[in-house]
Amino acid sequence: MTNINSSIPIALIGAGRIGKIHAGNASRNPALNLKYIVDGYQLARDDVTAATGAEEASLAQVFADDSIKGIIIASSTDTHADLIEQGARAGKIIFCEKPVDLDLSRVDQCLKTVEENSVPLLVGFNRRYDPHFSALHRRLKNGEIGTIEQIVITSRDPSPPPAEYIAVSGGIFRDMTIHDFDMARWLLDSKIISIQATGSCMVDPAIGEQGDIDTAIIVLKTESGAICSIINSRRAVYGYDQRIEAFGSKGLLQVANVTEDQVSAITPQGMTGPRIGNFFLERYAAAYEQEMNHFADVLKGTATPLTTGHDGRQALALAEAALRSLKTGKTIFL
Amino acid sequence: MTNINSSIPIALIGAGRIGKIHAGNASRNPALNLKYIVDGYQLARDDVTAATGAEEASLAQVFADDSIKGIIIASSTDTHADLIEQGARAGKIIFCEKPVDLDLSRVDQCLKTVEENSVPLLVGFNRRYDPHFSALHRRLKNGEIGTIEQIVITSRDPSPPPAEYIAVSGGIFRDMTIHDFDMARWLLDSKIISIQATGSCMVDPAIGEQGDIDTAIIVLKTESGAICSIINSRRAVYGYDQRIEAFGSKGLLQVANVTEDQVSAITPQGMTGPRIGNFFLERYAAAYEQEMNHFADVLKGTATPLTTGHDGRQALALAEAALRSLKTGKTIFL
Amino acid sequence: MTNINSSIPIALIGAGRIGKIHAGNASRNPALNLKYIVDGYQLARDDVTAATGAEEASLAQVFADDSIKGIIIASSTDTHADLIEQGARAGKIIFCEKPVDLDLSRVDQCLKTVEENSVPLLVGFNRRYDPHFSALHRRLKNGEIGTIEQIVITSRDPSPPPAEYIAVSGGIFRDMTIHDFDMARWLLDSKIISIQATGSCMVDPAIGEQGDIDTAIIVLKTESGAICSIINSRRAVYGYDQRIEAFGSKGLLQVANVTEDQVSAITPQGMTGPRIGNFFLERYAAAYEQEMNHFADVLKGTATPLTTGHDGRQALALAEAALRSLKTGKTIFL
Amino acid sequence: MTNINSSIPIALIGAGRIGKIHAGNASRNPALNLKYIVDGYQLARDDVTAATGAEEASLAQVFADDSIKGIIIASSTDTHADLIEQGARAGKIIFCEKPVDLDLSRVDQCLKTVEENSVPLLVGFNRRYDPHFSALHRRLKNGEIGTIEQIVITSRDPSPPPAEYIAVSGGIFRDMTIHDFDMARWLLDSKIISIQATGSCMVDPAIGEQGDIDTAIIVLKTESGAICSIINSRRAVYGYDQRIEAFGSKGLLQVANVTEDQVSAITPQGMTGPRIGNFFLERYAAAYEQEMNHFADVLKGTATPLTTGHDGRQALALAEAALRSLKTGKTIFL
Repeated sequence: MTNINSSIPIALIGAGRIGKIHAGNASRNPALNLKYIVDGYQLARDDVTAATGAEEASLAQVFADDSIKGIIIASSTDTHADLIEQGARAGKIIFCEKPVDLDLSRVDQCLKTVEENSVPLLVGFNRRYDPHFSALHRRLKNGEIGTIEQIVITSRDPSPPPAEYIAVSGGIFRDMTIHDFDMARWLLDSKIISIQATGSCMVDPAIGEQGDIDTAIIVLKTESGAICSIINSRRAVYGYDQRIEAFGSKGLLQVANVTEDQVSAITPQGMTGPRIGNFFLERYAAAYEQEMNHFADVLKGTATPLTTGHDGRQALALAEAALRSLKTGKTIFL
Repeated sequence: MTNINSSIPIALIGAGRIGKIHAGNASRNPALNLKYIVDGYQLARDDVTAATGAEEASLAQVFADDSIKGIIIASSTDTHADLIEQGARAGKIIFCEKPVDLDLSRVDQCLKTVEENSVPLLVGFNRRYDPHFSALHRRLKNGEIGTIEQIVITSRDPSPPPAEYIAVSGGIFRDMTIHDFDMARWLLDSKIISIQATGSCMVDPAIGEQGDIDTAIIVLKTESGAICSIINSRRAVYGYDQRIEAFGSKGLLQVANVTEDQVSAITPQGMTGPRIGNFFLERYAAAYEQEMNHFADVLKGTATPLTTGHDGRQALALAEAALRSLKTGKTIFL
Repeated sequence: MTNINSSIPIALIGAGRIGKIHAGNASRNPALNLKYIVDGYQLARDDVTAATGAEEASLAQVFADDSIKGIIIASSTDTHADLIEQGARAGKIIFCEKPVDLDLSRVDQCLKTVEENSVPLLVGFNRRYDPHFSALHRRLKNGEIGTIEQIVITSRDPSPPPAEYIAVSGGIFRDMTIHDFDMARWLLDSKIISIQATGSCMVDPAIGEQGDIDTAIIVLKTESGAICSIINSRRAVYGYDQRIEAFGSKGLLQVANVTEDQVSAITPQGMTGPRIGNFFLERYAAAYEQEMNHFADVLKGTATPLTTGHDGRQALALAEAALRSLKTGKTIFL
Repeated sequence: MTNINSSIPIALIGAGRIGKIHAGNASRNPALNLKYIVDGYQLARDDVTAATGAEEASLAQVFADDSIKGIIIASSTDTHADLIEQGARAGKIIFCEKPVDLDLSRVDQCLKTVEENSVPLLVGFNRRYDPHFSALHRRLKNGEIGTIEQIVITSRDPSPPPAEYIAVSGGIFRDMTIHDFDMARWLLDSKIISIQATGSCMVDPAIGEQGDIDTAIIVLKTESGAICSIINSRRAVYGYDQRIEAFGSKGLLQVANVTEDQVSAITPQGMTGPRIGNFFLERYAAAYEQEMNHFADVLKGTATPLTTGHDGRQALALAEAALRSLKTGKTIFL
């Protein structure tokens, strides 16, 4: 139901798992016209062009075509910073999957280029667009529970990634906890002044062999005195465990897991509720849709990015500090 | 993301509240091509044509256009039977909102015409397409709770319709309970042999003045001995209350209400969970989408209607029996 | 911790399952002095005297001993009316397990004797003393949900009694539903004017062979227009299912089952909550204690019975009407 | 219902708030004969003697009376170690409220005396006797969730104690968190090797003025690699928040708060569940009863203390380590 005349032409770079999600949401959004798909793998590209009616194109074509107002970068992490810089120089409005880069100085350099070219950059911290976490954020802002004193973020993946992914992931803090760091920053709304991290390898020895951990608890403290605990595991056999609890001077707010349906059974073994969703593509389906709607608003000029390059940079800085704390056993003061 | 070449051209008749929902779902379904919209009200039609890219058309155009394979009838109840018959004679595959008609003999006549013309007819009992109730149905079929012995359907609207609607509604049993009768028939899976109804007017005296009721409990019994209670009210101040409980020889299955989000608060007043959705357009959004997907399958010839004209007829027959029970104080044996 | 000097001497007649519960609660209540136990079975009596320090006695002793102010009748149903009459003539304050008798005219005769002797009679409708149902009743009285429009009582036993018990039980309505009739009367707080019953035998053919049913749904209507549905089964494999839902013009109140503990598990199969209690001795432990506290207050003269002989009579009358409705298929107007 | 002949004579020292709870449970336990109450305040002592039938006595009388087999120490913290030592020398079996002392070396000295006199010492870590946490512990031992990887203990008091109490409390870790340290030790079942603490004063500036904190998150790590987070606050406006979550290789176990009843309301504002209990006397009523039953078993010689002086010592050692971590910003390795 796209109105061809008024919709904004954009291009997608990277047509893998998350790229396909963005392609679907972009093609269903009447304000957007997904014109080009760029991907090295013929097969992935063909899938997405068939489903969306977009044309395949090269990077050069995308950057050279002045009708293309925005680009969605969903390619591999090591290409993000380069593509952002090229996009910025070509004057495109950019939506880039997190992280900007695994190296903080490279991120800073890249953000400088973005700033010099004055293009809006939206970094894909999808959880901020989730309706459940959005509702929590709104209620915190409304002062429903008074002063925020403690936040507990439970964030567990259903199963660990393969060892080869671990090797290029930048480690659990940069790869997985980075989402929780962004969520903590967003909800706490007070400068984080210190961080402590405790970790171990309990899930998969192959992760430990790479010098990484799979089980962690991180504690952040803000200028206001609020304390936040992030509970991470690379493997929750029962599904993708994504909960947040905010405690304040006037009460408690809790975001429960999203379940597959509303059907429960009661048998001699007890009450059995529905299962929780499997992984992020299912759990955050609505968030990805909202994120694309927000990107459309940014393209239309009616919104500025909710999740900026600066947010990406700060979350990465927390990941690096967590790593230093883990290695030294010391609280890192920021 | 419609693939224009292979999608099936269809027309929508009636562009009111529910018509717009169907228009949206049809236009998002890649297998369908919503070509025409027919509606007496210019304004409603314009809305939908603008949103979907469909053209406005007259009834005559729709029936005369051989490229149109299917029609969606979402106009007022009194036009349903006529339009079904015209559609059937024109060889269209039909999706008609419930009810076929408020009069049982008119329904029978209409279904005869459908049969003579051998066109598939899908009657819009949307709840069978709801993922939560579908999951319940599937689990009952799988024998998870053994023999079905009792079913309790709680079905309460958020607020009563205006008196002028009541006047043409056919009464609560034909208008509102008809969905619950269909659900009971589907879940019980044994011939219903008797029905008892108890009712009163507690919500709005204007409803009583029209000879109708707004508060009712109906009890059905099947050949197998299973007993079903339907709990109806025209006004639940807390929202659209749609729950089902199935009790069997091996346990209990419960479908809870769908909530707006997963956020709860705990304050000195207790734990406050999220609100339940307001009304059927929100509660059954996924069901309407699934229903349209199913209609697409019927159009493609890969499925036969899950909810047929016969289902519509039988639910109406139960509504009439309930009315007789209410008036006579007797159990009606079917 | 009984203060011997001020506690009130009482006797227990019948030291079976429920008699033992009452003996325990009486002996732990500092206002009561359980002096005598009467029971035909030496063994049962010995158990209770050992546990409580009470003496064994004959009926004659109990009635002749003027120091005995109150008696608890927990013997078999067929002895209740006689013992109440003897107790009343002896001037004892009486706590009798339900029912007074299975025959309505015998109940009326018995209550006449009680009235003539002006002794308080407390009939053991234990559920009114349950803290959860008490809270519901209090909140309904406080008008929290406005005018009561519908009540749904779910009341399922964990397993059917043996056939020999069925034979002397008076049937499901007099034996089991009688508790629900009392609860309905208490909560509805408006004269019940009609009743309809639907039943079948689905659990145990031996029950059907005795002319009884094991699965039933009963619908009551009050003068105010409120409608109540009672959902009964003799067998819920998952435990003793005791829930009530009250629906009114301002909202809904729900009493959930009481669970064994607060521990839940989440596994790949879903969330599994705690089990519900097995049967009435566990589920209503607090209710039995409160009931005995209330009896102590009646003995002290600071309260009149919350559950009277009249309540017992009215619940039995509803049971008889339900039976007539079941047999005739007609609504019975009271 | 005490059997005077076989019950074991004991004495209670300290008849304040918690002393009264123990007096009540002891007098209701048929195996115990609460003979003496020792308390400096006439009024408190009179209350308890009146309620239980115990006699008032001096400390000297209690220690000199050879018939007294056990003592319950519920006096102020600064008297615990002395009374334990006197009791041990007099050969009494001892139940002492936590902590043994606020000073670790004093605790060690006291435990040495206990050991030399070979008397059983039960330290009042009441939470281990709670049926909900006991069920969690049992299910963890049964391997229901496989290897324990993470534990999150949420433990928040309803309101902060007065400043004068804070002054003698030993600080939040020794006074409040000590219960959570014991729970962590019990559930983790692997040697704790490191501890980190983060804290702030957000609830009451008067607490900060005393050099104490009221908001804290502590992280423990065990030899096995398991990590535990303790979430503490001195003030949860919604009541006494006592929850535990255990995460393992096969799933998750959660202990929810205990609610006042099972009644929920649904109104236009959402679903409102029941309130959680106010404070430890209500929340742990069943635990105190079980604890006394266990002490009776220790007195009878059929059990050894579940919560020993060593447990008290180790929890205190964790409190001291937490304090050092808080002050230095370092992980403390044990």
